[in-house]
Amino acid sequence: MANKKSTKPGVVCIIGPGMIGGSVGLGLRKKRLAGEVIGVGHRRASLTRALKMGAIDTATLDLEEGVREADIVIICTSVELIPEMAAIAIPAMKRGAVLTDVGSAKRGIVEFVERARRNDIAFVGGHPIAGSERRGIDAAKADMFVGSACILTPVNRRRSEKALRSVKAMWQGLGAKVYLLSPAEHDRPLASTSHLPLLLASALVNTVGARKLPYAGPGFRDMTRIASSDAGLWRDILLQNRRDVIQALKSFKKELDALESAIDGKKAAALYSRLRRAKRLRDSVTRDRK
Amino acid sequence: MANKKSTKPGVVCIIGPGMIGGSVGLGLRKKRLAGEVIGVGHRRASLTRALKMGAIDTATLDLEEGVREADIVIICTSVELIPEMAAIAIPAMKRGAVLTDVGSAKRGIVEFVERARRNDIAFVGGHPIAGSERRGIDAAKADMFVGSACILTPVNRRRSEKALRSVKAMWQGLGAKVYLLSPAEHDRPLASTSHLPLLLASALVNTVGARKLPYAGPGFRDMTRIASSDAGLWRDILLQNRRDVIQALKSFKKELDALESAIDGKKAAALYSRLRRAKRLRDSVTRDRK
Repeated sequence: MANKKSTKPGVVCIIGPGMIGGSVGLGLRKKRLAGEVIGVGHRRASLTRALKMGAIDTATLDLEEGVREADIVIICTSVELIPEMAAIAIPAMKRGAVLTDVGSAKRGIVEFVERARRNDIAFVGGHPIAGSERRGIDAAKADMFVGSACILTPVNRRRSEKALRSVKAMWQGLGAKVYLLSPAEHDRPLASTSHLPLLLASALVNTVGARKLPYAGPGFRDMTRIASSDAGLWRDILLQNRRDVIQALKSFKKELDALESAIDGKKAAALYSRLRRAKRLRDSVTRDRK
Repeated sequence: MANKKSTKPGVVCIIGPGMIGGSVGLGLRKKRLAGEVIGVGHRRASLTRALKMGAIDTATLDLEEGVREADIVIICTSVELIPEMAAIAIPAMKRGAVLTDVGSAKRGIVEFVERARRNDIAFVGGHPIAGSERRGIDAAKADMFVGSACILTPVNRRRSEKALRSVKAMWQGLGAKVYLLSPAEHDRPLASTSHLPLLLASALVNTVGARKLPYAGPGFRDMTRIASSDAGLWRDILLQNRRDVIQALKSFKKELDALESAIDGKKAAALYSRLRRAKRLRDSVTRDRK
């Protein structure tokens, strides 16, 4: 699809075919959205598994070799490795190809890649809002992105119009609803909707501690599932999006303090109105995939 | 089973056969743990539905009539109505019968019922840690309590030994793991494992607000599902368990501040170790019913 000379689906190279990258591959292949899907990994076992599951057509441990013929290169590694992968990929990519990624913090990545980018290659930052606390190719599934949001953060839109169309078409083909935001606009809401929840879940688990865990019910389990996510991955995300995370934390603590003071002062009406507002907002999030 | 004169299963009266009460009824009847299950409600439509679903054998709108022949009376209304229901039930109950409940805050209820209790009736406070953000008989299911914890809070254990055995046997029959705690011991951990999560979920939803909700991913949805629970019910629970909730909030805010300062100060190692601790604890909660 990134092939400008024809309408024939192009070659897509997935760097890091894990839960997200593998799901991209499964979806692209199932829906015949790509002529070929190449997987680049650093562990042979994972690549073999990705091949067996049908997430990729061919596999290689050599990043430069993997990206060479690709029309779209999509970096699906953990967020802290994306700049490094981009720096290796860019010199090896073919003229006119499109680079994109799935990193959950965009400002730092976009700045880095825009500096490292060759003029004959386009970059479109991306972030599909999907996945679970799991990792790795075994958690991949073809319908991972169906009905979910995918945020793209193009810069220099005029120059990268074609590239944006390719990447947008790919995500729409995978079933995602695409939103366009600037990298900063992306990082701000995500600090509240993604990074803050992880912090709260982790803090809650640590507050409860091992002794009280047996009394944990289904609400607690739902609420803290994301605390099982990879600690190293999240450390990097939180530090990369530090400013916005701190800002989101401040807003959250203000709201929590208001709830606390309503409880402490036995202000039943004030407490009810805040709980009610939350219920109404949450009820509006209709799609509730589990 | 509360019938002391024989081993024949006794008559159980469920006051409020909604999600929890209806699940008790479905489970008791499915496993033939009761000779008869009587449902007492205040809306004819719900009782009809409970009868149709097989959660109860007979139904009545008259509480005093409903409890008269019961060996075990279990109050499954929302928590703020339990004392009132107990006050009406006690004078009508038969000699030697056992009163219990499913309220999620125990101290206030136990104090009230112990004062209102006749000497020839035993009371065993209870709280099954199960259910979802839904309410009403349509959310009831026979296996609701399988594998979950149920906390009983008997006082005067010597005098209520037999009653405790009956109530314990009932919950074990329904598949729950029974824990015995004092009412105060119960309320304290629940403030962290149940009441605090609701507060955090509600505060998070209000912080994110309507504008950013489209960017909410699966982590956010899992985390905030309980914020869809009934606001009036939770207002009452939070106010009833006020002291312990405030205490739990204080511990939580301390942990959150530690995470914040690690992020703010770019202390990668400190941040990682806290996230890692949470992951390990959360991973130990193996049973993850969705």
